[in-house]
Amino acid sequence: MNSASHSDSGAARVVRVELGPRSYEIRIQPGLLLKVGQLLATTVKARRVLVVTDRNIGPVHGRPLAKALQSAGISGDLIELPPGEGAKTWEVCKSLYDICFDQGLDRSSCLVALGGGVIGDLTGFVAATFMRGIDFVQVPTTLLAMVDASVGGKTAIDHPRSKNGIGAFHQPRAVFIDSDALKTLPDRDLKSGLAEVIKYGVIEDAAFFAWIEQNLAALLARDPEALSYAIEHSCRSKARIVGEDERESEGGNRALLNYGHTFGHAIEACLNYQGYLHGEAVAIGMALAGELALRRKLWKPEEAERVEKLILRAGLPTKLRLSDPAPELLHAATFSDKKTRGGQLRFVLPTAIGKTAVFKDVPEAEALKVWQDVPRA
Amino acid sequence: MNSASHSDSGAARVVRVELGPRSYEIRIQPGLLLKVGQLLATTVKARRVLVVTDRNIGPVHGRPLAKALQSAGISGDLIELPPGEGAKTWEVCKSLYDICFDQGLDRSSCLVALGGGVIGDLTGFVAATFMRGIDFVQVPTTLLAMVDASVGGKTAIDHPRSKNGIGAFHQPRAVFIDSDALKTLPDRDLKSGLAEVIKYGVIEDAAFFAWIEQNLAALLARDPEALSYAIEHSCRSKARIVGEDERESEGGNRALLNYGHTFGHAIEACLNYQGYLHGEAVAIGMALAGELALRRKLWKPEEAERVEKLILRAGLPTKLRLSDPAPELLHAATFSDKKTRGGQLRFVLPTAIGKTAVFKDVPEAEALKVWQDVPRA
Repeated sequence: MNSASHSDSGAARVVRVELGPRSYEIRIQPGLLLKVGQLLATTVKARRVLVVTDRNIGPVHGRPLAKALQSAGISGDLIELPPGEGAKTWEVCKSLYDICFDQGLDRSSCLVALGGGVIGDLTGFVAATFMRGIDFVQVPTTLLAMVDASVGGKTAIDHPRSKNGIGAFHQPRAVFIDSDALKTLPDRDLKSGLAEVIKYGVIEDAAFFAWIEQNLAALLARDPEALSYAIEHSCRSKARIVGEDERESEGGNRALLNYGHTFGHAIEACLNYQGYLHGEAVAIGMALAGELALRRKLWKPEEAERVEKLILRAGLPTKLRLSDPAPELLHAATFSDKKTRGGQLRFVLPTAIGKTAVFKDVPEAEALKVWQDVPRA
Repeated sequence: MNSASHSDSGAARVVRVELGPRSYEIRIQPGLLLKVGQLLATTVKARRVLVVTDRNIGPVHGRPLAKALQSAGISGDLIELPPGEGAKTWEVCKSLYDICFDQGLDRSSCLVALGGGVIGDLTGFVAATFMRGIDFVQVPTTLLAMVDASVGGKTAIDHPRSKNGIGAFHQPRAVFIDSDALKTLPDRDLKSGLAEVIKYGVIEDAAFFAWIEQNLAALLARDPEALSYAIEHSCRSKARIVGEDERESEGGNRALLNYGHTFGHAIEACLNYQGYLHGEAVAIGMALAGELALRRKLWKPEEAERVEKLILRAGLPTKLRLSDPAPELLHAATFSDKKTRGGQLRFVLPTAIGKTAVFKDVPEAEALKVWQDVPRA
């Protein structure tokens, strides 16, 4: 693992998310954490800031960020929540509202989400609903949060019956990505993030897919240039899709981002979000979607193999475990996915590397068969 | 009190709220409740509907509405919550999410809020956040909800520290106002609603103010024509203001709707929302704002008197009660209002009947003096 020291060099990469009055910029730069204070002072103009993080990230990145805010003249406290998906519950959400009121935050205040997807989702949801919505800024510290959660404004907490079941669309005012934060990210989390990076290649960009194939070793070795390029490109890809379809409308292209996720979410839900990281479940989901596409003759066996090979090279799974739930249970779980509309299953399937579409006509038996036939190891 | 029977006559009045892709229509018509089914089938196209009401309104208006839905071929259940502001708590909100999941609602479902402001606020908030937002339709049954809550998309639940402290902007897909519902509305609630009607006259429409003066007796006698006109005009007024400033932006005109509300909310908050109906507190608030405007020489004594006289004729209070909290407590409560930004008080003050503006330069001592000098009886 590389050292956790901050590099001061490296030009800023900026991706603009075009959403009319809700447009914002994603800035990607090594060492950016220490500049968040001054950037915040110019982009958000908040009088009060509350930084929300967890007990793992707080000690590593929280203190430098708080210091950066202080030196920019912004008064802000740091709240450390318990780490893990457990923080996305009703109870923690309620305690965060309490803290916001205790701290005297008002409509001109700003929340800063410092952490992975859980912190971003929860903090974003509280920002979306505290006093009917206040500003928030994302400072993602995991690759997954950088390439996925930082774009699109999806915020949520979990309901006991549905992951992300309670939420809102609330765009951040800015996203600050310090690529140096990846230096201390556990290997397994890095790989999990790569699943989403690979996703962008498959759904809409064959050239990017080829780039990942060529640069996978550099990505896994945490080469700063390679990682920054992958983050920028992924954000640009998602920003383009979200810019055309902010609210995931019926028939809109935002649904394409769910490639690998219908199967993936079912795996996660069936296992109660234990055992697989999100990117790992999505990786298996992409393999299953590829297999289903193959059976429907939507794309060629060579293409399916190329995707599967890249997933495996990234250290991600394409098979289920022997101990995983029965195919019938996994199949049933796909129907509880939020993407279902009117009880109808939708699958995002590739028709080529770089091309995907939503299919509503997959017979249930065909989907079940894929679950039954996926190898287990 | 008039009979509760439904009249089938009367042309529909339609007010369009222009909010781009979130535009919707308010339809005002006697007997409309029985037509909600067919209207819903054409405007919302929801596959599943859940009607949310309370135990007072359910038995009177819920059953006819449920029947109307059924005869239009819409499958929908009716949920009766406990009546009163207590329903706007975290706990009831949570139980409503549970019901939504239990009933198998999905993103294509629609919530129908049948009742007063509490039901509208709560149901709207759940619609705003269930699966990141689903459709909802308002069927207001109180005058206050018809002229105020039905326009503008403000939804919320209460936080122990702040009324409406947790909420979202979420526009309904349609508002159906059955003016016949007012036939069974208690007198005190009717008068409470009239406070908001008078408000529209003062803040932006001198001619409407004069119309209310001339037609107050008819309004109090529940003349259907007079009430329908007042509702239509109030909705049109609010729709115009909200159309220009959907999210109550800094410096926007939506703040004008808070005329009487900074003082009014302080009264309500200090008394823990007991003792005064919302319109009653707003009525006192309007009198106090008028007095403050007078002291600042913003308008003429004749104008202040004319407003006060109309408030009194409507059976609404302009004075505090002897038993109300001390002026200092009421004054302190104005600072906890959500309208505060960066700790700075803002007062919406009239400069003439039909003309108001936001003033940020009222010294604290001056505001306190108004609280101290308001008569108590």
